[in-house]
Amino acid sequence: MQPDPSALLTPASIAVIGASENPRKPGHVMVRNIVDGGYPGMVYPVNPRATAIAGLTCYPSVADIPAQVDLAIIVLGRPFVADAVRGCAQASARAVCIVTAGFGEGDDWGRDTQAELTELVTRAGMAAIGPNTLGLVSMGGRLRASFVPFEHWDDGPVAMVAQTGVYAGAVIEQLMHQPYQRIGIHWTVDIGNRVGTTELELVDVMAADDDVRIIGLYLEELVDARALMTRAAEVSRDKPIVLLKPGRTPEGSRASASHTGSLATDDDVLDQLVAQHGIVRAADSEEFTAFLKAFSYLPPTRGPNVGVVTYSGALGIVATDQLIEEGLRIPDLHDRTLAAMDALTPDWQSLGNPADLWSAAEVAPGQTVRTCLSAMLADPNVDQVLAVLLAVPNIDFDDFRDAFAGLRAAYPDIPLHVVMYGALREKWTAALEGLDIPVYDTMRLAVRSIGAMVRHAEMHRAAS
Amino acid sequence: MQPDPSALLTPASIAVIGASENPRKPGHVMVRNIVDGGYPGMVYPVNPRATAIAGLTCYPSVADIPAQVDLAIIVLGRPFVADAVRGCAQASARAVCIVTAGFGEGDDWGRDTQAELTELVTRAGMAAIGPNTLGLVSMGGRLRASFVPFEHWDDGPVAMVAQTGVYAGAVIEQLMHQPYQRIGIHWTVDIGNRVGTTELELVDVMAADDDVRIIGLYLEELVDARALMTRAAEVSRDKPIVLLKPGRTPEGSRASASHTGSLATDDDVLDQLVAQHGIVRAADSEEFTAFLKAFSYLPPTRGPNVGVVTYSGALGIVATDQLIEEGLRIPDLHDRTLAAMDALTPDWQSLGNPADLWSAAEVAPGQTVRTCLSAMLADPNVDQVLAVLLAVPNIDFDDFRDAFAGLRAAYPDIPLHVVMYGALREKWTAALEGLDIPVYDTMRLAVRSIGAMVRHAEMHRAAS
Repeated sequence: MQPDPSALLTPASIAVIGASENPRKPGHVMVRNIVDGGYPGMVYPVNPRATAIAGLTCYPSVADIPAQVDLAIIVLGRPFVADAVRGCAQASARAVCIVTAGFGEGDDWGRDTQAELTELVTRAGMAAIGPNTLGLVSMGGRLRASFVPFEHWDDGPVAMVAQTGVYAGAVIEQLMHQPYQRIGIHWTVDIGNRVGTTELELVDVMAADDDVRIIGLYLEELVDARALMTRAAEVSRDKPIVLLKPGRTPEGSRASASHTGSLATDDDVLDQLVAQHGIVRAADSEEFTAFLKAFSYLPPTRGPNVGVVTYSGALGIVATDQLIEEGLRIPDLHDRTLAAMDALTPDWQSLGNPADLWSAAEVAPGQTVRTCLSAMLADPNVDQVLAVLLAVPNIDFDDFRDAFAGLRAAYPDIPLHVVMYGALREKWTAALEGLDIPVYDTMRLAVRSIGAMVRHAEMHRAAS
Repeated sequence: MQPDPSALLTPASIAVIGASENPRKPGHVMVRNIVDGGYPGMVYPVNPRATAIAGLTCYPSVADIPAQVDLAIIVLGRPFVADAVRGCAQASARAVCIVTAGFGEGDDWGRDTQAELTELVTRAGMAAIGPNTLGLVSMGGRLRASFVPFEHWDDGPVAMVAQTGVYAGAVIEQLMHQPYQRIGIHWTVDIGNRVGTTELELVDVMAADDDVRIIGLYLEELVDARALMTRAAEVSRDKPIVLLKPGRTPEGSRASASHTGSLATDDDVLDQLVAQHGIVRAADSEEFTAFLKAFSYLPPTRGPNVGVVTYSGALGIVATDQLIEEGLRIPDLHDRTLAAMDALTPDWQSLGNPADLWSAAEVAPGQTVRTCLSAMLADPNVDQVLAVLLAVPNIDFDDFRDAFAGLRAAYPDIPLHVVMYGALREKWTAALEGLDIPVYDTMRLAVRSIGAMVRHAEMHRAAS
């Protein structure tokens, strides 16, 4: 039987093996989060020493459940996991999620038992994630099978496969908790130590899923890098793929081995492979989420030319340095753009790129923002615009949101990226909510995100 | 007469030339902010067409003011600035602050007039900042002479000289507005186009000022780089100097020329000079403030060895890569440290560096944090500790603040740096307020700040 990863994402029923009556235990939290998350199918807690957990009838074993189990989530102590997986195979479960840790990343017993688990799930034809996984969240399945109780979750165009719990846990929780600048995530799966379902199978699911437009991969080990790359090259033209693969240094590789038991990859080879196959690589967690946000919010870019509008000359220079070092270009502006901006500034100042609006800010900030950003966005020499704003009371204006809404409506095809400094930063960021204008935490994240979008466009242009 | 920069920082009286009755005009805002900021000396608005401004008696000219003027702040149109400076010289003002822009950074007239201003202030022996400055803030002088109305300002160990308004404006305003992780700033001066007082003179003031422990410099041009470096080498051993000097790329240099009229520097030569003279260089505004925070909050480091404690294996690997790429070291831990940590984790896991606490987190997070961080901080192989925390409900604990307060009290000489991820990030950051534990916005800023402190220590050890 061929394993079907969709049994993980849209299971018709779930058993939680090792469910607990103790609200502090993982085996209870998992049941509670699935129920509270609005999962519409049947949930069967399994525990021989309990009759009901979280209001649900409890069963002594999977075999005792009087119905088909699609997905079995295993939250048992290490010694009991392999037997539980055998039970799931006998009960014809379609997928297992082995939460328990201490296998390939642990000791000799763990490594041996992990090999046994691999054999068990392969022979049974079950889709499988873990061991050593935090679970998954799937909006298509209305399923929040993670230890982290997500009070809020935005559905959206991103799907993620991660070989770690952070992307079904803390990082996502932080993203979903933000009052603004959230990213919509359709599903995220922590594949853990990878005894069954691979990232390649899940990329196939992403490719086929019309609800998925952007793909995030956190991987510590690329088991079959060339197969993944070949598939990625086909998929990533239409669905950008952002990869975070740490362990670049020998020390990082060693840390990776004790995290998920992964083997080292030659990082230079990987960098080449990635670039050849149209994948964008993030250097850290902050870049990973920033890139996913940029791709989620913005239309594709047509080239490397960046128009910079800034209220601070100093920060404009900082931006320029970073954009150039990122391999991007700061083009000369079209005469029309220069004429439009010159009308706003004193005689002695001729604006260029970056356009330093400080001297024009005192007059009518709303008009300045509208005029200069419109001119930049309309400039045929400019492929995307970076706006560096000073969110200070002097420059505040009532129709801030309207100005930016108008810009997005008038120039839907030109990416507009924003960085802000000043005490009103939160207020202004809140005002942009819903306009799909990315506001970055740092200048560097803005520049790196522009670079990611440009590299994606150029890799796929080169390949065509 | 030798100019005295202290006339800028602690003037006994101030004239604002070009003061305005219109509350929206810079000439009004400047008066208002000085008064609201609690300046204790006399403030004399100067405007021939007004009798009173912001409740203060207005004078037609500086010559009409019936008392000595220490500092004259000029907020006039370009054509009137030179005459005003002449008037200040005749009135024996000790210092001028020329706010007006459009000189060296503007057109030919501006450049010629700037040369004239330089001659005027030099001949008069006046300290001078500007033209093209946002002003200054000086806690010693209880003076907030900036257009940005600072509702709150923390005095503290940092002094800054900036050749741009952002560091007397938006960036500082953002810092001072943060509910936590603020930096105390004793004074900051925007020297603008630099017709008089130089950064070198102000570094001398910083060196002599016992209230100043850390120095921040934002410079677009180093007029006499070698003299500055020589002085910096003497000062920076005891008072770390953080330099942000953009214009690294030709494009950035061009942008700098139109911002403050600065000439390009060979950036590689500068990098060498900086390193030779014990100055730490920041790449952007976020690094600049992060470095100043690290030096403000923490004791000096004794070496490059970083102990990493993490609740996420993945983020521990990311941290490891970045620390190694920053030139730092991830040492093997002492046996005592390993033994202390092993007591908390399952049998199959042996902790190393980074120490991944995930498997221990379920039990008693407070105890885990206390035990592992104490052991790391006490480890003779570890010079500083980076804690990567997951601020999620599962790991939350009541005595979070007490745990960290205890660590700081027990190990006051070992720097402790923190990065957090998760929905409770703000809550936990707030809990650390007042403990002088830096929490960084991104992993990269944490790693770069550790690198800055280590480079500072190593440069000065090499020199001694």
